[in-house]
Amino acid sequence: MAGAEWKSLEECLEKHLPLPDLQEVKRVLYGKELRKLDLPREAFEAASREDFELQGYAFEAAEEQLRRPRIVHVGLVQNRIPLPANAPVAEQVSALHRRIKAIVEVAAMCGVNIICFQEAWTMPFAFCTREKLPWTEFAESAEDGPTTRFCQKLAKNHDMVVVSPILERDSEHGDVLWNTAVVISNSGAVLGKTRKNHIPRVGDFNETQFGRIAVNICYGRHHPLNWLMYSINGAEIIFNPSATIGALSESLWPIEARNAAIANHCFTCAINRVGTEHFPNEFTSGDGKKAHQDFGYFYGSSYVAAPDSSRTPGLSRSRDGLLVAKLDLNLCQQVNDVWNFKMTGRYEMYARELAEAVKSNYSPTIVKE
Amino acid sequence: MAGAEWKSLEECLEKHLPLPDLQEVKRVLYGKELRKLDLPREAFEAASREDFELQGYAFEAAEEQLRRPRIVHVGLVQNRIPLPANAPVAEQVSALHRRIKAIVEVAAMCGVNIICFQEAWTMPFAFCTREKLPWTEFAESAEDGPTTRFCQKLAKNHDMVVVSPILERDSEHGDVLWNTAVVISNSGAVLGKTRKNHIPRVGDFNETQFGRIAVNICYGRHHPLNWLMYSINGAEIIFNPSATIGALSESLWPIEARNAAIANHCFTCAINRVGTEHFPNEFTSGDGKKAHQDFGYFYGSSYVAAPDSSRTPGLSRSRDGLLVAKLDLNLCQQVNDVWNFKMTGRYEMYARELAEAVKSNYSPTIVKE
Repeated sequence: MAGAEWKSLEECLEKHLPLPDLQEVKRVLYGKELRKLDLPREAFEAASREDFELQGYAFEAAEEQLRRPRIVHVGLVQNRIPLPANAPVAEQVSALHRRIKAIVEVAAMCGVNIICFQEAWTMPFAFCTREKLPWTEFAESAEDGPTTRFCQKLAKNHDMVVVSPILERDSEHGDVLWNTAVVISNSGAVLGKTRKNHIPRVGDFNETQFGRIAVNICYGRHHPLNWLMYSINGAEIIFNPSATIGALSESLWPIEARNAAIANHCFTCAINRVGTEHFPNEFTSGDGKKAHQDFGYFYGSSYVAAPDSSRTPGLSRSRDGLLVAKLDLNLCQQVNDVWNFKMTGRYEMYARELAEAVKSNYSPTIVKE
Repeated sequence: MAGAEWKSLEECLEKHLPLPDLQEVKRVLYGKELRKLDLPREAFEAASREDFELQGYAFEAAEEQLRRPRIVHVGLVQNRIPLPANAPVAEQVSALHRRIKAIVEVAAMCGVNIICFQEAWTMPFAFCTREKLPWTEFAESAEDGPTTRFCQKLAKNHDMVVVSPILERDSEHGDVLWNTAVVISNSGAVLGKTRKNHIPRVGDFNETQFGRIAVNICYGRHHPLNWLMYSINGAEIIFNPSATIGALSESLWPIEARNAAIANHCFTCAINRVGTEHFPNEFTSGDGKKAHQDFGYFYGSSYVAAPDSSRTPGLSRSRDGLLVAKLDLNLCQQVNDVWNFKMTGRYEMYARELAEAVKSNYSPTIVKE
């Protein structure tokens, strides 16, 4: 059952476990219990009308004398593709823009300051097909393509920072395609972009009015050093827009972004798509199985993880959803001062050892009898 | 309830969830389901007689044409201190030797090739008291102290590699104390030692007849780079003998060692103590709370995690236990060839960036409007 039949881990546990046990299970699996946010009724009504899930949680920090709470509300969006993958490109993009606009309006009612959409959100996740057309037609300029202009309007209208992961066409540099996230300030200005390449690049660390954010796209979440570099460069919230399927990664999903939040004393936001996307042409997957027309089931389950090892429940495995989390960024420093991983990490030695290890004549240190 | 009242996550889930849901919960939380090992009846009988838990699981890999399965059986031991912390030092050590000898004999019946005990296993975990005597009297020479000699006998008798984490007194270098793990070959020879300092040192990577092992002591598990360096130096199994309590870390416990197994394509073995250890003198913990006489509740829950994101259930939160896991080390390379984190990690760039980041004049890369 890696498909849609099973709604969510949390729903299952809440349905079957007696309260005292449920509390223990949640303590061990999810850390400190989070307060549910009191989101406006109109937001729930709109979410219900538009048929998507809405959840909200607060991560709180201890009161301090010299710093006020540094509250920021983040929004994570997961969604199915509203039109089939063989609909005309322009219609698919428009339908996605409409869908996201409706969800962002609810996020605005909930006071969201920074919102992040799923990886390559303007298209089906068609990389599995290894076909070029029509998928490359979904690529746009990160600086002034229609989706970036659309997001700039959203950002300005709602005073909201928008993280928009798209397929980028860089026509100024040989028409190269990139898997890119564009960061748009709440003023509407394009603040920067980051490309999926597992290392920090220009634009990865963006300081907004609401805090310092970074975007670690999809596969980058498997690399602890990638998260570390964002954190060393000051990121307090790292978004991880992803597209990943049940059979491949569902048991990695609750581990990696959460470990990154713990190891780096920061918040991480893991976002996945929902549903099965059917492609017009069959393709194979190098796994010895017969040709098929879908990549697999995208299991949603988007969540926010905190530096103190607490996390929100995941959004559903099967429905579009908006997860709103109220973060007090003071928690990052507070946890830093308790666990001190940055102080105790022997980074200078690691830098030296890593530099040695990548040399072609490096031989591992192994003690034998 | 961070204490002994709640037996284990697994017991709770198995008691309350209907089978199809239980399977889904386990798939999401634990990955691929593991086969239970068919351990000898005499082993279960001995474990029952000696009043400790015995569990066994197999991690299997796909069959290959050119390599045979590289099977190794590891044993993880968690235990309470058998005598109160105010008993005479020599009696406490003897009682622990006796206890461990009984457990190792059961491990031998189960065909264990490599066994690892908990952190500072020959003593109460007395660092919380900040007192010197009598705790420093538990320190021994790593090379030829009574505990190392005891373990050498065990190793030889049972043809078993022994990982023995002790408090070390290095009398050849200024009588310095170290939190050290000694690795003893199945021949009985001391193969090396590793000291808790969050970075690899001489003796960390030990090649035994059964595979290449490393020991990452306790707090080192919070540092992803520490695990990485062991792995880059060839470790296929990394033991993490620990002593950690419920209120502090129980929600980090299922995450960190498991993330390390995933990120580094290796096996990790997380081992924790069990029970509450009461000290003769009260002490404070810098948390604003009144003086007390114990560090907190050690919640056991030892487990083995595999590179494919599967893991064993944890041993109990409240009982002494031996966890036997049959590993096929071929799984490491097989998962490596699927996920390719070593191939895709930009280590050269990280080495360069880290070397920059530790400079005193480094300033983070932050993009502002």
